[in-house]
Order: sequence, then C-alpha cells, then structure tokens
Amino acid sequence: MSQNEALLTLEGWFALHDFRKMDWDAWKAASEEDRNQAIDELLALINKWNLNEEAKEGSTALYSILGHKADMVFMFLRPSLEELNAIETEFNKTSFADFTYQDYSYVSVVELSNYVNSPDANPYEDPQVRARLYPSLPKSKHICFYPMNKKRSGEDNWYMLTMEQRREMMRSHGMIGRTYAGKIKQIITGSVGFDDWEWGVTLFSDDALQFKHIVYEMRFDEVSARFGEFGNFLVGNILDAEGVRKMLNI
Amino acid sequence: MSQNEALLTLEGWFALHDFRKMDWDAWKAASEEDRNQAIDELLALINKWNLNEEAKEGSTALYSILGHKADMVFMFLRPSLEELNAIETEFNKTSFADFTYQDYSYVSVVELSNYVNSPDANPYEDPQVRARLYPSLPKSKHICFYPMNKKRSGEDNWYMLTMEQRREMMRSHGMIGRTYAGKIKQIITGSVGFDDWEWGVTLFSDDALQFKHIVYEMRFDEVSARFGEFGNFLVGNILDAEGVRKMLNI
Amino acid sequence: MSQNEALLTLEGWFALHDFRKMDWDAWKAASEEDRNQAIDELLALINKWNLNEEAKEGSTALYSILGHKADMVFMFLRPSLEELNAIETEFNKTSFADFTYQDYSYVSVVELSNYVNSPDANPYEDPQVRARLYPSLPKSKHICFYPMNKKRSGEDNWYMLTMEQRREMMRSHGMIGRTYAGKIKQIITGSVGFDDWEWGVTLFSDDALQFKHIVYEMRFDEVSARFGEFGNFLVGNILDAEGVRKMLNI
Amino acid sequence: MSQNEALLTLEGWFALHDFRKMDWDAWKAASEEDRNQAIDELLALINKWNLNEEAKEGSTALYSILGHKADMVFMFLRPSLEELNAIETEFNKTSFADFTYQDYSYVSVVELSNYVNSPDANPYEDPQVRARLYPSLPKSKHICFYPMNKKRSGEDNWYMLTMEQRREMMRSHGMIGRTYAGKIKQIITGSVGFDDWEWGVTLFSDDALQFKHIVYEMRFDEVSARFGEFGNFLVGNILDAEGVRKMLNI
Amino acid sequence: MSQNEALLTLEGWFALHDFRKMDWDAWKAASEEDRNQAIDELLALINKWNLNEEAKEGSTALYSILGHKADMVFMFLRPSLEELNAIETEFNKTSFADFTYQDYSYVSVVELSNYVNSPDANPYEDPQVRARLYPSLPKSKHICFYPMNKKRSGEDNWYMLTMEQRREMMRSHGMIGRTYAGKIKQIITGSVGFDDWEWGVTLFSDDALQFKHIVYEMRFDEVSARFGEFGNFLVGNILDAEGVRKMLNI
Repeated sequence: MSQNEALLTLEGWFALHDFRKMDWDAWKAASEEDRNQAIDELLALINKWNLNEEAKEGSTALYSILGHKADMVFMFLRPSLEELNAIETEFNKTSFADFTYQDYSYVSVVELSNYVNSPDANPYEDPQVRARLYPSLPKSKHICFYPMNKKRSGEDNWYMLTMEQRREMMRSHGMIGRTYAGKIKQIITGSVGFDDWEWGVTLFSDDALQFKHIVYEMRFDEVSARFGEFGNFLVGNILDAEGVRKMLNI
Repeated sequence: MSQNEALLTLEGWFALHDFRKMDWDAWKAASEEDRNQAIDELLALINKWNLNEEAKEGSTALYSILGHKADMVFMFLRPSLEELNAIETEFNKTSFADFTYQDYSYVSVVELSNYVNSPDANPYEDPQVRARLYPSLPKSKHICFYPMNKKRSGEDNWYMLTMEQRREMMRSHGMIGRTYAGKIKQIITGSVGFDDWEWGVTLFSDDALQFKHIVYEMRFDEVSARFGEFGNFLVGNILDAEGVRKMLNI
Repeated sequence: MSQNEALLTLEGWFALHDFRKMDWDAWKAASEEDRNQAIDELLALINKWNLNEEAKEGSTALYSILGHKADMVFMFLRPSLEELNAIETEFNKTSFADFTYQDYSYVSVVELSNYVNSPDANPYEDPQVRARLYPSLPKSKHICFYPMNKKRSGEDNWYMLTMEQRREMMRSHGMIGRTYAGKIKQIITGSVGFDDWEWGVTLFSDDALQFKHIVYEMRFDEVSARFGEFGNFLVGNILDAEGVRKMLNI
Repeated sequence: MSQNEALLTLEGWFALHDFRKMDWDAWKAASEEDRNQAIDELLALINKWNLNEEAKEGSTALYSILGHKADMVFMFLRPSLEELNAIETEFNKTSFADFTYQDYSYVSVVELSNYVNSPDANPYEDPQVRARLYPSLPKSKHICFYPMNKKRSGEDNWYMLTMEQRREMMRSHGMIGRTYAGKIKQIITGSVGFDDWEWGVTLFSDDALQFKHIVYEMRFDEVSARFGEFGNFLVGNILDAEGVRKMLNI
Repeated sequence: MSQNEALLTLEGWFALHDFRKMDWDAWKAASEEDRNQAIDELLALINKWNLNEEAKEGSTALYSILGHKADMVFMFLRPSLEELNAIETEFNKTSFADFTYQDYSYVSVVELSNYVNSPDANPYEDPQVRARLYPSLPKSKHICFYPMNKKRSGEDNWYMLTMEQRREMMRSHGMIGRTYAGKIKQIITGSVGFDDWEWGVTLFSDDALQFKHIVYEMRFDEVSARFGEFGNFLVGNILDAEGVRKMLNI
C-alpha cells in the first residue's frame, strides 16, 4: 500500500466508549442523601455534555447494557484525546463514579473508509462528509457495539490482498449495509494504534432485531466470513435523564 | 446469502440467562432477619414472574448450577430487551442480590432456524411455530446450557459454504435431535449482534445423562465436528420455591 | 456415528472435583475457638462422607494441591447431580468454607469407553465393570488431575475419523496405560454436556514421578500427539484427618 | 543464525513501562492533607527522576492513559535492572502508590536492530548510535505503546526465514518509518528473555492521528501483515507537574 | 516412543517456583513492630532453608521480580512433593505471608533429557549427573524463568517426529547452549503431568543481557522456531538477607 492510500481514510472526532458496571450493593447501602447527590452530579454532567452537543463541539450517548459485562455505556465523541481524557477524569471525580466500576472501554476515532470515497475534492469541506465525521449521535431505542479486526491468518490474510481485492469486497459489504438504511444508523470508528482492536462498530436502531439481521447477513459476506474477527458484543437500551432516575431509584 | 434468506429465521421472545454466584460468607454472616427478608424478596419476584408466565407474557426458569462457575441461573424469556433490562435492574435492587455476584450472562432471542422451516404461509400465525417461539419453559429436573459459534477457520468456514451445503448438514443434525424427542426439550436462541457467541443451546431433561448423550452423538456429526465452536457448559438442578428455601436455609 | 455407538459408553457415578484455595490471612486472624469450630465442621463432613463410602453410596477423596491454583481438592463420586449439588451447598454452609475460595471445579460422570468394551452381555451386571463404574477412590499418596478434549482442527479432527480409526488408536493408547498397572490407578470421567472439557483424567499413585512418565509416554502416542488438548494440570498429596489437622494447625 | 549475527543487535538502557490505575474511590475518600502528602511525594519522585535525566543517567516519561487499562504510565530508562527494580520499590513505598494499582507493565531494553546497522566500527562509540541507545525521552503531547511478537505459525514463521529475507523485509519496513520522521519519534525496546512479548514499540507525537497512520500503513507491509503479532495498544497524553496536579485535584 | 525411551529421562529434586506479589498498602499500614515481626519470620525461614541446603537436602533461591507479575520468587528444590507442600504451607502460616499474594507458581522436577545422555552406566551414580539432578542453585545477580511446551499443531507437531529427528534437533539446540557456558547457568525442570506447561527453564547470570542473547539466538533454531511455545517470562535480581531488609524497609 502506498502512503497516499492510507491517507485517503478520513478521520473526524475521537471517541471513547466508557462501559461501567454498577456497584449495586454500595448503592443500596448509601444514604438517600448520598444517592441523590450522586444522581445530581451525574445529571449535571449529562447536562454539560448536552450543551457541548448543542455547541457542535462533540456528541454523547448514554445507554444501559444488558448482562454481566456492563450496566451502562457512555459513548463520547470529542475533537481531541485531551478532551476525552478530561471527561473520563471528571467523571471519575464525581460521587456517582464511586458506585461504578470501569471494566471495559474502547478508544478510537470516527472514520470514513478510503474504500468508499473518491477524493476528487477536499472531502473535509463536503457537508455530507462532515456530517458523518462529526455526527450527532442518534436517540434510537437500542445500541449495539462490537470491536473487530481484519484477520491475518494463513490464506485468510486481509493485509496481503491487493487494494483492488479489498475494494471489491468492501463494496459488496457496503451494499448490504445500504439495505438497512432507515432501520439502522451505523458509526464506524478506527482504532489501529489506539486500541487492541482495529475497528469498532456502533449500531443504533429502534428495532433490536435489526442488529441481529445485519450482523448475521454480513457474516456470509466474504469480507466477514473469511476476514472478520469479532470481540465482545454489547447491547442495550437508551437512557435519558428520566431513565437514569428510574434505573437508580431505590 | 440473499437478504431474504436471513429473514427466513423466525424470532420469538428475547432471552436473558442470568448466572449468579452466592456470597456464602456474607449470607452466613447476615442476621436471620436479614436472610428472611432477602428470601422473601426473592420469592416475591419468583411469584411475580409466575404471574407473568400465566399471562403468557414471558417465561422464567430457575435452576441451581454445579461447580465454581455459578450457584444458580435465572433464565428469562420476555417480549423486549427493555423488559429483560428492567428485570435485571429490579433483581439487582433486592436485598437478596446483595448476596450474589453476576459473573456470567447471555443475551439472545428465541430462534427457529431457516434451515428447518419452509415458509409457505406466515409462520408467525402457525400455533406450533408460536409455541416454539414463545415457549413455556419446562419444569424438568435438569438444565444444561452452552453457547456456540459456527467456525470460520481455513477450510472449515461455515459461512463460506453454500446454502445447500448448510441446509443438508443441518438436516442431518436435526435428525439426531429428533431421536431425543421425549427425553430432551431443547430451546435454541440466536445471539448474533447481541452476545459474544452466535447461538445458545438450553437443554432440559429429567435424565442428566441425556445431555451427555446428545451432545456427544452430535459431536460426530459434520456440522459440529468441523464447524462447531463451544463455550462454557453449565449444568444444574431445578429450584422451586421449596428448593430455594432449602438451599438458602442455614 | 450411529446412536447405538454412543450408547456403548458406560456411565457410573457422577463426579465433582471441587478445588479450594485457603484464605490464610483470615484463617490466621480467626480466634483459636473459631478455627477449632471450623476444623470440627470439616472433619464431621469428612466422617459423613466416609460413612457414605462404607454404605457403597459414593466415594470421596481429599488431597492437598501444590502451587497457586488450589490448596486442596475434594473429589466426590455420587449417584446423582442432586447429591453432588447438596454436598457442595452443605460444604458452603460450614464455617470452614468461610476460609476458602472456590476458583475451579469440574463436573463429570465416571465413564468406561466404548472403545475398550465388547458389550456382549449387560455390562452393568458385570462385577468388574461395576467396580470400575462405582469405584472406591484409592488412598494413594499422590493425585494428578487434568481435563482434556479431542482436537477438531483442520486435518487433526478426531470427530471426523472413522470408528475403526478411533478404535485402533485408543487400543494402542490403552496398551501404554496397561504397562502402568500396579503403579497408577486411573479414573476417567466424561463431561461432554456437563463441563467445558470433554474428559477428565484423575490419576492416583504412591510415586509422583509415575504421573510424569505416563503422561509423557502417552504424549508420543498419535491419539494424544495429534488429537489431545489438555487443560490445567493439578498435583498433590493425600490429606487424611491427621493431615488436615496438621495443615490447618497454627 | 550464527551467534555473531545475534550479537549485532545493540542494546542501551533497560526499560520499565509501569502502567498504573488510580483508585479514585480511595482518593476521593482521603483527607485533603493525605492527598497533598501523596501528591508531594509523587512530585518529589518526578523531581528526582528529572535530576537523574539531567545527569544523563536515565530518562523518564509520564503520560496519562485513556480507558480502562490504565490511568497513567511511567516509562523509565535506566542503566540496570537493579535500578529499575529500586525505582519500582521506591514508588511502591510512597503514599501516592496506595491510591494506585499496577495491573500491567513491560520489561525490556532499548535496542537497535542488526538489520539496519553495518557494524564496521564500534557502534557504541558512535555518538548518533549512543543518542538512540541512551535517549532522552521526548516531551511530545501523545504516547502510544504496544508490544509485539514475530509470528511462528505454519507457513508464516519469521524465525525460519533466511537472514537475507528478514533483512529485506525489515528494510522495506524501515522505509515506511522514515517517512514519518519529524512527525513521530519511535523507541524500539527488545524483551526476548525479559517479558512475554519479544519487542515493545513506544511512539511519541504531537499529533495522535499519526499513530494510527503509521501503524495502519505498516500493517500492509509483509513483515507486519504476515509476521506481526500485536498485544495491547495504550494511548495517552503528556502529564507534567502541572498536569499531575490538575488530574489529581478534587 | 518405546517405554524405555521415556525412562531415559533422569529426574532429580522436585521444584516449586513460588511467585509472590507484595501487598504494599497493607505493609505500609502495618505497625513497625508488625513489620519487624514479619521480616523476622521470613528471615528465620530463609535461615532454615540455608541449613537445609548445607545438609544437601535441597536448595533455595530468592530473587526480586520486575513488573506487575510478581515482586519476588522463591525457587525451592526438594526431594519430594510432600516437602514442597510443607514449605508452601509453612510459608503461608508466617505473618509475612499476610502481606503477599500468590498469583503464579510452577510445579516440576529437575530433569536431564534423554537426548543428551548415553546411559551406558547407572547415571544416578555419576557424580556429574548427580550434581545436575540435585544442584545447588547459584547466587548469580539475575534470574530468568519461563515455562514452555513443544508444539503439536498441524505440520509442526514435535510428538509426531521420530526419535532420530528429535535427537538431531536437540543436539543442535544444545550446541548453542554450550556457547553460553560460564555466562549462564541453566536449570531445566520437567512438568509433564505436574503443571500446565511441559518444561520450565530457569536461567541464572551476572549479566542480564545474556538472557536476551541466548533466548533470541535459540529462537532461530528449528526446535524453538517451529516447535517452541512459550509462557510468561519473569526476570529479577538476587535478594539476600540484606536485600530483603532493604526492599522491605519503610
């Protein structure tokens, strides 16, 4: 691959998926006053993040997560690693954070693949491109997140394919994705050099079964079937301020 | 695979397998009053879940689990991820939950495979199909649960096979399953897009050895021998209200 | 494989290997009275298990384990999963259990392979077979335990071999085992459908080096060399009542 | 490989990457006096390390880390393992260390590969070589660290290649690296015999996206595509004394 | 392999590598009196082990370990598993052990390979052989430990090679080792049947870089390149009584 080819990838906001588990025992053992204080601090942060979103300086999503891997995920998009770091530290200093564990996270940057863009003009000036690089995260009912690699194993080595082979397979892959337009909103973030996985896929939908349909259908596509390696899958439901209060109410 | 082929898969209730370990030290250190309170809260939830089952709005199973991986499993079937999430949160708020750890879980949806159904009519209106998509979980003496993937490794890549090849192998697989009719009740749940594994198999039987026989016999079937990847196996005994009291009695 | 072939496998008592680590800090911090109480409860259970053994309703072995993986193993053979479950729960309710962690365990059933038996008569009525299916665990100085799978990887796929190929390899394997008769007592337990591993091997010997010799020699046998996958190996020394007192004495 | 070939590798200072997580709950629960004491002890150590750096007896870098894997990394370069050990112990004795966990670390030695040097003279007397073996760690805005192995799997076995094949691939690899000169400062440390991984790559840049670009571009290079195995990737932002105070301020 | 071939392996003292992490928080929180008591108990054990060594009834080494995996390693050689078990239990009963965690260990027996010995006479009566089977561990400045397996994967299956092929490769391997005579002292211990890994390599040297050189040079040897699988590498510095006091001094 020539260096130019790598540079065709477009990058937007940096991203931190911050998965948290609740320490329910401590939460129940706390006084009502302490719990209210903790909820207030969390809601104040959420409010601050909303103002940030209104100012187009980032975007934030908050969803509950099912099962043992996490109880909730905060997905942050921001212009720099410093800002993501500051958010994580600020959150850790709240009294609410005392009632949570951070067992899992994912660091990346919003990415548009060089396979789908023909950069005849400066893409960073294209409003449609900008809307995808600096997106406002949707308020869909459900979220699905999973990280992935492209395999490098014996005959199934993505990085030994030619640019033409990769482009062709990604095109077919994109065709499937397009049939879910309107049903699923997809954010691809790249994490080569940032995280143990190469990419992260974050899906939003009002119909959770669509997550199963798109991932299953794509799994038969050669690019996934032969070259996809997948990490943990996490799925959950949107949490607005009302939902946060309800979830945390004892 | 065409999109239509994926849609042939039928989906019913969402499922959460919630595995819990007891904190026996804390349980023994608690006062009898606190233990009784905890048991009462658990039995109240069980009662609530029974009413939900009577209303045909879901189904719940409770079994003990042998060994270090868990002490019990709550298997919940419900119409939506939101309801499963609410159950998990409600459970975590009980005083009984203070005496448990949640180290493992599995999120999925009841599934009938497109390999075994010929959808000439709307299958969701077929009473037999509905009974399998929205099942009432059996009260068998024993449970066996394991998650699985279809392998994508070199020559053994399930997702690179043709539909015809897959259909043929699944048919042979199903033939074995049918010989266990009356001895084993099997619930298949799909979790592509929801969990780290692609499918979960939950078996119920009054004879625990049947779990060993069916899994061992199927392992020689090409679909398992070449393409099956298996996760943790968990096995246990049914827990009714009486069993819960006995297990928790100090 | 035909169903009949699977059924040729003979099954005896169910088995639970319950590995425990000591919480030595808590043990030392406890009062002498509490420690004595804990030892008494443990010895009372051991006595109860001995009576069970005398009544031929099961068998129990207790060994220390070297290294960080465990401090001791309780190996229980019983007629049903319910009885194993009840033993585990009863143990967890003792005050001795407060000073232990359960990090590892293994659930299985005593098994005689269909490769070595020619079932011309009802084998369950053969006294020699019964003695192996419902064994009295030996009082050898040392124990060695490890779980294993038969590999299903590319060309090395045990479950794609013919019955004849498997039978031939197992025969050669058994020949090696027979040369250790008198030096090693071996209990094979099957756990397909019960545990993450397919089989467990528990060896007993008065000479610990024999464990190394038999496992090393067998590793060159094709059935192990090409098809064996091995889990954790645990090794230890017998613990009788006197040994328990000595180990726990502060 | 001849022994001489191995000895062509040049080695400089030993290295310890010490990753720490903050115990934020304990930090917030501590009195302001205790927190100030802890910060003072940390800053005193940082000052001591700075004096060491001025004396050209080692070099130290301190960066925050994003996500759940760590909150900060201390990268130490020193002339001996004894000095690295003493630093680790001294740090562990500070009151600041009480508020941290050490979940991850990496032990290695600064290395110049025998593939890129033609040792016609004593390289240890060459000032340019010395500057690379005993470097002063840069003060760039961002750090990226990952460990790696050269694969030994079937046809993709780096250690079965000829010296000529390896030299050719490394030359091409180095060419890519050189195009990032001025944008990225790279420290390669070798850890064969010291750590679970064979090499560690530590990158410094004022533009975090450059980490993604160089690692992604190199991944298409045969030496990475076929032979690279990568561990955890960790990324973060520089922490000077002011940054430490700000991060730890409650 | 014939049984005789396996028996050509010579075995000496049993070995326990006991890796410990310090609980520095608890250590610093303890009173000076408690710390002194703990140090005294540790030094008393070290003294006891020294007497054991003088009596030629075993050998003991104590080294610090760098990084997060451990803070120190106790390497014990003794005539039986019972003695190793007793040492571990005795250590766990000291007040010093309260300030340590045991996260890692390795159980094995000193071994001389059948590939390098021509057993024309009873080797156990050969003083040179005895010195290697029942060695006095050196007082070198540095230790390096790693466990390893011989691979059994597809074409790279050590255990499917002929005795002649293995002997030839081991001879070449030994030739490299011999070039490090005087620089490195190597103890090979076998753990087939005792531990998850098949062999352990413990290296001692006054020059830590020699660990890197020998392991790296050997990695290009076919026996390692194609057939070696390696576990954790741990490296550290010698701890005598003075070093223990210095390390633990607050």
